[in-house]
Amino acid sequence: MKLTLQPQPIQVEILIRRGLLHEEAIEVIRRLGKRVAVITHDNGVATHAKSLCQALQADLFTFSSGEEYKTRETKAKLEDQLLKAGFGRDTVIVAVGGGVVTDVAGFVAATYCRGVPLVLVPTSLLAMVDACLGGKTGVNMPKSKNFIGAIYQPHAILIDPEVLETQPLESYRDGLSEMIKHGMIWDAAILDWIEDHWEKLLQKDPGTLEKAISDSCQVKLTVVERDEKEEGLRRILNFGHTVGHGIESSLNYSISHGTAVAVGCLVEGYLSKIPEADLQRVLQLYQKLEIPLKLFLESSEEAILDLMKNDKKAVGGKARFVTLARLGSVEEHDGNYCRTFDKKELQHALRWCREAVYSIERIEHP
Amino acid sequence: MKLTLQPQPIQVEILIRRGLLHEEAIEVIRRLGKRVAVITHDNGVATHAKSLCQALQADLFTFSSGEEYKTRETKAKLEDQLLKAGFGRDTVIVAVGGGVVTDVAGFVAATYCRGVPLVLVPTSLLAMVDACLGGKTGVNMPKSKNFIGAIYQPHAILIDPEVLETQPLESYRDGLSEMIKHGMIWDAAILDWIEDHWEKLLQKDPGTLEKAISDSCQVKLTVVERDEKEEGLRRILNFGHTVGHGIESSLNYSISHGTAVAVGCLVEGYLSKIPEADLQRVLQLYQKLEIPLKLFLESSEEAILDLMKNDKKAVGGKARFVTLARLGSVEEHDGNYCRTFDKKELQHALRWCREAVYSIERIEHP
Repeated sequence: MKLTLQPQPIQVEILIRRGLLHEEAIEVIRRLGKRVAVITHDNGVATHAKSLCQALQADLFTFSSGEEYKTRETKAKLEDQLLKAGFGRDTVIVAVGGGVVTDVAGFVAATYCRGVPLVLVPTSLLAMVDACLGGKTGVNMPKSKNFIGAIYQPHAILIDPEVLETQPLESYRDGLSEMIKHGMIWDAAILDWIEDHWEKLLQKDPGTLEKAISDSCQVKLTVVERDEKEEGLRRILNFGHTVGHGIESSLNYSISHGTAVAVGCLVEGYLSKIPEADLQRVLQLYQKLEIPLKLFLESSEEAILDLMKNDKKAVGGKARFVTLARLGSVEEHDGNYCRTFDKKELQHALRWCREAVYSIERIEHP
Repeated sequence: MKLTLQPQPIQVEILIRRGLLHEEAIEVIRRLGKRVAVITHDNGVATHAKSLCQALQADLFTFSSGEEYKTRETKAKLEDQLLKAGFGRDTVIVAVGGGVVTDVAGFVAATYCRGVPLVLVPTSLLAMVDACLGGKTGVNMPKSKNFIGAIYQPHAILIDPEVLETQPLESYRDGLSEMIKHGMIWDAAILDWIEDHWEKLLQKDPGTLEKAISDSCQVKLTVVERDEKEEGLRRILNFGHTVGHGIESSLNYSISHGTAVAVGCLVEGYLSKIPEADLQRVLQLYQKLEIPLKLFLESSEEAILDLMKNDKKAVGGKARFVTLARLGSVEEHDGNYCRTFDKKELQHALRWCREAVYSIERIEHP
């Protein structure tokens, strides 16, 4: 006997527009459910959440921000509060915040009454172009990031570049780094465009941001559309991340995710054997965007090599890497998008990158 | 911008065969993952789990059985144990037990590493013909059954009627009651067949059981196939349950689920205005199967009427009921399968049923 289910197509509406949160957002959310619960973190950025709440006459639920609060306990507390406030099947959950908030609130929505409608309102550039797209939700376990979770698509993602005005430049740059990654793996035109508009990007010019966010989202959406469950193609989004995670971890997270991924993209680009001129071009782009690559110089090569073996993609204790065919395109190996390198090759790539970053630093600060 | 996902069709393999657990089961499970975790409750029935574990060289994880342990805390404990034992993405979870075990272990599988393959091995008749089919998983919250959970389909359901030999007759009858419900809402031939085979069913004759379980599963599968998310048709599986839940709750669960649903099917059959001869026929079938309907006589009509208002299907404080067009077929009302009745009608139906049960008891024990 067999049960065959053909699930309905899933549609996620993604709106990217300045000022969106003042008007359109209200309508979109109201359409989805009778009772609205806004979930956000309890620090400054919650301003956007508060005004949304007022406009929607919604209830506000908060939790402490930071990876260390991305836990089952936080999820349980939010569920208790929702249940106590009488939220039932006709609930719509609106997550307002960065990746931690959208991951936790998304996971709450995925299992509340076996799933209620979800709307994401990312407030950091990184969440806008990466975390909020693709439906990954979850919480951390000790030493295991995002270990308990679900793939659960929101009904809508509402991106208002205006909220970035208050984002600190340091974390804002993490989003810029992820944009460059999208350019490197899928669409070299993104790199050309950023080269022409980097000053306006750093100034957070709204029109420039709308275009940049939109192009970057398009890359991730295209990839997720072809492989929602990360069985193949979606792996390419991990370009730069095998090395990046190793660096982050080796420096005990004193380097930001975006900076570590920037270095990771250079190292993995080098492993890919694309022309060095292309790598120099990317390096200069990072410099223009003031991504503090030099932090990488403080890391230990041995520690990075060792930590990469624990990467999620590792098989039999050997780290695997996404590689580029050229700028704007990844390499495929028999339907697979990951390959291994031996220790010598990895050392060589890390040393090249160290030298390259060192040289550029020397030019800037002779 | 829009993200459109067309999820892959989901296939659930359902094997119903005596002795299945000794051989075929091992192969089916091995195919699904490298490391096998068997989850079961820690009372007697776990024998089946233990022998499966040995054959599969799997790890065994247990929790206390009973609705009161169907909680987020139990889920978290199981996750901690799995993580500690080093289970990762290549895990397959095998749930061996009744509905509580399949609901909790299924929910663990749904969110472990964002979802790992799941195999259900139901060990009660009710779990075989009802709980294990349809993908509902979850845990209870205070006063809210199955409030946190997911719809997550197992890869395979392995039904071995042999394991029913050790099931106590009382809970075994709960499964028989659910089979009759399936006959009433979808396939009157099931009722004819049970009328011809009730003695062998009570004796748990393996061949008879294979056929009976298979027919009953087919009804639920057909309904779930057409409406996995319970947006319409799947509601009809709640026939007998609005009244049934009211009775269970009013008697503080001193009556079994199956007995309460049996009474519920009679009352809701009466509300449907199908010929009384048909209802008498069902009543006699319950008698033959020794379902202790007389427990219903101890309940309070006012309490039942009151409790039904809290039913999940209730709208605006009015209980809603699935009704029959005739034996073997439900009524549809503009794409909806539920309707309300006024208090007088409900009282009338409950009183008719009380009288009918009382009469038949008087004949049996004059």
